[in-house]
Amino acid sequence: MLQALAEFITEIQPPDKAAMAAARRHLDQLTKPPGSLGKLEDIACQLAAITGETMPDLGKKAIVVMAGDHGVCEEGVSAYPAEVTPQMVLNFLHGGAAVNVLAGQAGADVICVDIGVNADLEHPRLYARKVRKGTRNMMREAAMTKQEAVDAIVTGIQLVEELTMQGYRLFATGDMGIGNTTASSAVLAVLTGADLAGTVGRGTGICGELLLHKRSVIERAIALNKPNANDPLDVLAKVGGLEIAGLTGVILGAARHRCPVVIDGFISSAAALVASRMAELSTAYMLASHLSQEPGHAFILQALELAPMLHMDMRLGEGTGAALALPLIDASGRIMKEMATFAEAGISQSDK
Amino acid sequence: MLQALAEFITEIQPPDKAAMAAARRHLDQLTKPPGSLGKLEDIACQLAAITGETMPDLGKKAIVVMAGDHGVCEEGVSAYPAEVTPQMVLNFLHGGAAVNVLAGQAGADVICVDIGVNADLEHPRLYARKVRKGTRNMMREAAMTKQEAVDAIVTGIQLVEELTMQGYRLFATGDMGIGNTTASSAVLAVLTGADLAGTVGRGTGICGELLLHKRSVIERAIALNKPNANDPLDVLAKVGGLEIAGLTGVILGAARHRCPVVIDGFISSAAALVASRMAELSTAYMLASHLSQEPGHAFILQALELAPMLHMDMRLGEGTGAALALPLIDASGRIMKEMATFAEAGISQSDK
Repeated sequence: MLQALAEFITEIQPPDKAAMAAARRHLDQLTKPPGSLGKLEDIACQLAAITGETMPDLGKKAIVVMAGDHGVCEEGVSAYPAEVTPQMVLNFLHGGAAVNVLAGQAGADVICVDIGVNADLEHPRLYARKVRKGTRNMMREAAMTKQEAVDAIVTGIQLVEELTMQGYRLFATGDMGIGNTTASSAVLAVLTGADLAGTVGRGTGICGELLLHKRSVIERAIALNKPNANDPLDVLAKVGGLEIAGLTGVILGAARHRCPVVIDGFISSAAALVASRMAELSTAYMLASHLSQEPGHAFILQALELAPMLHMDMRLGEGTGAALALPLIDASGRIMKEMATFAEAGISQSDK
Repeated sequence: MLQALAEFITEIQPPDKAAMAAARRHLDQLTKPPGSLGKLEDIACQLAAITGETMPDLGKKAIVVMAGDHGVCEEGVSAYPAEVTPQMVLNFLHGGAAVNVLAGQAGADVICVDIGVNADLEHPRLYARKVRKGTRNMMREAAMTKQEAVDAIVTGIQLVEELTMQGYRLFATGDMGIGNTTASSAVLAVLTGADLAGTVGRGTGICGELLLHKRSVIERAIALNKPNANDPLDVLAKVGGLEIAGLTGVILGAARHRCPVVIDGFISSAAALVASRMAELSTAYMLASHLSQEPGHAFILQALELAPMLHMDMRLGEGTGAALALPLIDASGRIMKEMATFAEAGISQSDK
């Protein structure tokens, strides 16, 4: 399975620079000062680089929401009880969560995946891909074995393959898992060396002493497990989570199929950081959607050199920030296809 | 006419705090940690405060693009010749500009207004409301008389009144006018006391010596005209522009009709600053869409205490940033109407 993962990773291609340059040339003919549409233009160029087409048709959009539980919840690191994870999965399946509402507006489908929920779940729309019932408590032992982490990553990669065969060409990431800001902060701290004092946040809403307790739990989990900062799989297995690993797979899978992948908030970005450390080329396929209120998020985006489009002070996860960014990606495609050129409109160009 | 303007301003009502509190109570019942949707929640509360309804139906959306020319273009402050203003107005009317594309995606109508273009324009879809053919060169004399500035503001107020009768209940601002970053920087500098070194930008794309020249032109225009920083109308008339004045009217008019008004970039925000100085209550009706690359924009938003939703590095104007923000406002309304409550979904609430 580790061999299979390594092979998937070697299949990721570098972006197509010629298609990117062709997109930029077209943008510079449109009736606006060159570059004045900022990130809308950059996205158009990136989509060309990703797909190899100047004006790609991105097909159906999937927001892949990976759900998993966290053994470390035993330590009291979250404002909500762990039973909320399966309850929210059912809410996704019934269409009542924020991500359902925002995905509906954006014309995207919510693909709800049980990759590690600590409950028996059945539903016709559920993608039942459980690797195990939640991680182990990382304050006592490694959250996962390496094999479990690889299984979760490969599950994400294979899910993307399956979805591309159904016509999905644009992916967005989402997460559900009580306790997963704790795991994401741990992954971030080990992989970037960032100080926990600035990168551990309130999650669903803890504060005061509980926040200090959460930081201390992460410190102790790292001290116990001694993850190797130069081995992203080791870090993911020891202090990560099943949904984080699954999302790493979704990101690698999208890159492997030359599809753009829109990264949601803190948890998704921790997965993106792991993906980039496993396959540097995958970064070229990522679009950062929003800047979360969770303080560690800015650290990860900086490490990935990604600039978020939206500053909405959100901290919900689920893929809600990614869903909100989808119309911006659509807008970028429409600019390419629908705007008049200077020649068509008979407009004078810059004289300076 | 000055009397009429004063009367319009007294008709602006304070926001409805009871409706705002009712919206917040509803949001706190929805299946998410309280406040975790950040600005989406704040927008929902603001829309309730503006309209007096917890879940308002905002009706049709108008992006009002005010176009005007600037006498100061004689001094060579822009990368494009002044003839581009009427050429771009025709591009708006033919649907080929960026704002047309983005408005189309957002389900908004572009209302294109000639409030001061220095050319004879005719088109069945043009709102022909010319106050005069461009401003005077503010480096030699006042850009407008006070009467002309008032006429342009009242034109904006009356246009909003007309549009509300056609079912428009959500307004967004847009601008077209070669030279108008020069006028906006002058207005900003006088009204806030900000240093021109940090607030004069590249506009459509000047750089190097031309940028220093632009700053010097603004300094000399302010020194010559001596606008009174405590009299926003005086500032607008002496160093502002016809489209800026028209947009001030659109903003005041929207507030007067209890309609939200989405503020685009630098030029629109200069108009919003003038509106807020004329009628402090109008600020409660404004939503900041994006942060422009034009450096003065952040200064104005800070002065207005508005936080932009989008960070797209755009600097085009036309209402393009406002158009991109419209789906976010729709999203806020959908969250209010479509999300499940904790009770409906049977989900445990926070235990901390």
